Amino acid sequence: MNLSTGRALVAQGGGPTAVINQSLLGVVLGARKYPQITGIFGAVQGIQGIAEENLVDLTETDASELERVGATPASALRSTRIKPTPEICGRIFEVCKAHDVRYFFYIGGNDSADTCRIVQEEAEKGGYELRVAHVPKTIDNDLKVTDHCPGYGSAAKFVAQAFMGANLDNRSLPGVYIGIVMGRHAGFLTAAAALGRNIPDDGPHLVYVPEVTFSKEKFLDDVNRTHEKFGRCVIAVSEGITDDKGRPIVEQFTGGEKDAHGNIQLSGTGALGDLLSSWVRAGTSISRVRADTLGYLQRSFAGCVSEVDQTEAREVGEMAAKYAIGDNQDGSVAIRRIGDYAVEYFLTPLESVARESKSMPKEFINKDGNDVTQAFLEYARPLAGPLPTMAPLSAPAVNKILDA
Amino acid sequence: MNLSTGRALVAQGGGPTAVINQSLLGVVLGARKYPQITGIFGAVQGIQGIAEENLVDLTETDASELERVGATPASALRSTRIKPTPEICGRIFEVCKAHDVRYFFYIGGNDSADTCRIVQEEAEKGGYELRVAHVPKTIDNDLKVTDHCPGYGSAAKFVAQAFMGANLDNRSLPGVYIGIVMGRHAGFLTAAAALGRNIPDDGPHLVYVPEVTFSKEKFLDDVNRTHEKFGRCVIAVSEGITDDKGRPIVEQFTGGEKDAHGNIQLSGTGALGDLLSSWVRAGTSISRVRADTLGYLQRSFAGCVSEVDQTEAREVGEMAAKYAIGDNQDGSVAIRRIGDYAVEYFLTPLESVARESKSMPKEFINKDGNDVTQAFLEYARPLAGPLPTMAPLSAPAVNKILDA
Repeated sequence: MNLSTGRALVAQGGGPTAVINQSLLGVVLGARKYPQITGIFGAVQGIQGIAEENLVDLTETDASELERVGATPASALRSTRIKPTPEICGRIFEVCKAHDVRYFFYIGGNDSADTCRIVQEEAEKGGYELRVAHVPKTIDNDLKVTDHCPGYGSAAKFVAQAFMGANLDNRSLPGVYIGIVMGRHAGFLTAAAALGRNIPDDGPHLVYVPEVTFSKEKFLDDVNRTHEKFGRCVIAVSEGITDDKGRPIVEQFTGGEKDAHGNIQLSGTGALGDLLSSWVRAGTSISRVRADTLGYLQRSFAGCVSEVDQTEAREVGEMAAKYAIGDNQDGSVAIRRIGDYAVEYFLTPLESVARESKSMPKEFINKDGNDVTQAFLEYARPLAGPLPTMAPLSAPAVNKILDA
Repeated sequence: MNLSTGRALVAQGGGPTAVINQSLLGVVLGARKYPQITGIFGAVQGIQGIAEENLVDLTETDASELERVGATPASALRSTRIKPTPEICGRIFEVCKAHDVRYFFYIGGNDSADTCRIVQEEAEKGGYELRVAHVPKTIDNDLKVTDHCPGYGSAAKFVAQAFMGANLDNRSLPGVYIGIVMGRHAGFLTAAAALGRNIPDDGPHLVYVPEVTFSKEKFLDDVNRTHEKFGRCVIAVSEGITDDKGRPIVEQFTGGEKDAHGNIQLSGTGALGDLLSSWVRAGTSISRVRADTLGYLQRSFAGCVSEVDQTEAREVGEMAAKYAIGDNQDGSVAIRRIGDYAVEYFLTPLESVARESKSMPKEFINKDGNDVTQAFLEYARPLAGPLPTMAPLSAPAVNKILDA
């Protein structure tokens, strides 16, 4: 046990998830178990809030209030997308020192893990004892080392249910339906569109992920073939699909807005869906073509949470407190899948998670590059949890009299 | 009681809803109570299916299967958007005669009510005894006479939960968020975005419905003022908003595809959201602007149903059977609200519901034309039913040390 007495500081970074506040709850209640913790601060708006000394005191927040906050989607401490420059990381270290923070918990994705790594290095250079724990969170499910990421299961459940409904809607009013799903580099969330398939003609009939180079010609071939077979076609497309030169397909529609990390804006616009629709209209004889962009709903819709995801999001927070405070170790909390289905947690070095991200393994994508495999469905089903039961109507046809 | 022995025929028309199959279930189980019913047929793809004699036999479908189908969103018998021309209505009448159909049930909106009216006229002209019942259904909630329409409550619940999440997401990563909601002429569904508001800074902060002429200048003023006040702005916009000449705002972006009723395509495209985003980017100094188009999710998302809506959708089906078969009357089933909250059903003439639609009453829209009123919230809350509980985090600020 680390006997260095001091405060804990917790922050949330990047895009919110439906269960990110469970991790906050886990860190706060986890930290309270240790007598060397003299107080628990939260940073408002992530590392930006720390840099601006914009902190709140969670030391005495009631557990019942924290439980209610935990059940609420989107970062309760607010978030930020600012880039952790060396200046900002230096400043974070200074603020920690000034406020006697000895344990820093950052809930976020690979950018946040990198921030953790840099802050820890700064502290070490400055001879200041600071334990830094990265608490994994991302709907993209693209963190390295861990089997999967808290936040993914709930988003996957939302995407699955969205496509279950869209599939039935498309069966009742046939045509081509394109649903654009979040995921800049990794197709895990788009792939989840297939989780609700049940009977043979259920969509999505085609799934396009960023791991596979997107070809307009192949896409139109796929759509035509599927439409001929089923009289309709439901398609899940990742916002991050790229052409053979690695350029985002959406760039063919718009120059796009870039964020602080230099990433082009993919979400919050219907551009990609409308582009693909126009291709189908021009390149096939199908007249009814519709595109939805699932947008922000998939990461923050109120009332669609995977129970497994909720539990694990809380546990990674609690484990982070245990590793950092109880065991005096820096690192990122990771999940190992054991059995079918249970998990155990372990600590992985910050640098093993920082910066780089993970793509879908090849065995999750079919040979044609336009669907997922059974291996993916088995991987993702326990994460999204049970889905609603949908039943088609089967009834015998009536013999024609007039046209007989 | 009508003693004319014969078959019942049921069809579903127009856009699906999350509970339209409850009405199907209600009609089928309701009709089975009457000894003069010799069989129950379903039309595949609405009036198109009848015209093509594409019928299925539901006479012996197990009630347990029907219950499962009832819990499934989107028209189980499939649907159609074809216009009921005099030829098609004449053909429907012929098919009814050929198959000894004496009771015709059509689940749909005002177009479907009009079809019912024409088919009944044809039967009367032809001296064929045919009872015709319109079973109300529409997420737009725009049918005349009835207090509200089955299908609306579940869609309203979805829209409310979508904006609850979007509001929290926008609070954690501030900027302007625009959510485009279905509703060509009536703003009821867009207005439902406000149902989840709880604390003073909760969005949507602005709500634009088709009942109020949309002005770009006023919109930008509203956005600027709201953004100054809250540091962010969440906006619900109906897809059907029009300018002072009655032209859809979306036409300024695209020519648009027209359906068989001559209506311009509003859904299944991100055009309006992207247009409004570009206006905010160009007309204000706000940099982070995002737009989502809720699209088909709002009418068919699997797993988001209002219980009240589900019950009422089933009951209007059962009442349709009672009125048509038990009472030998033509008409459209309507809902009267009694107390707070209960309903009773009554029959209204087909012509009172056919063709024309209802707009939001003035008392549901605020004076500025950019929000809903308390009267609307009281009207809509029982229809959407309970929403998830969301809790903000409140914690005392920590005194600054470095910047003190």
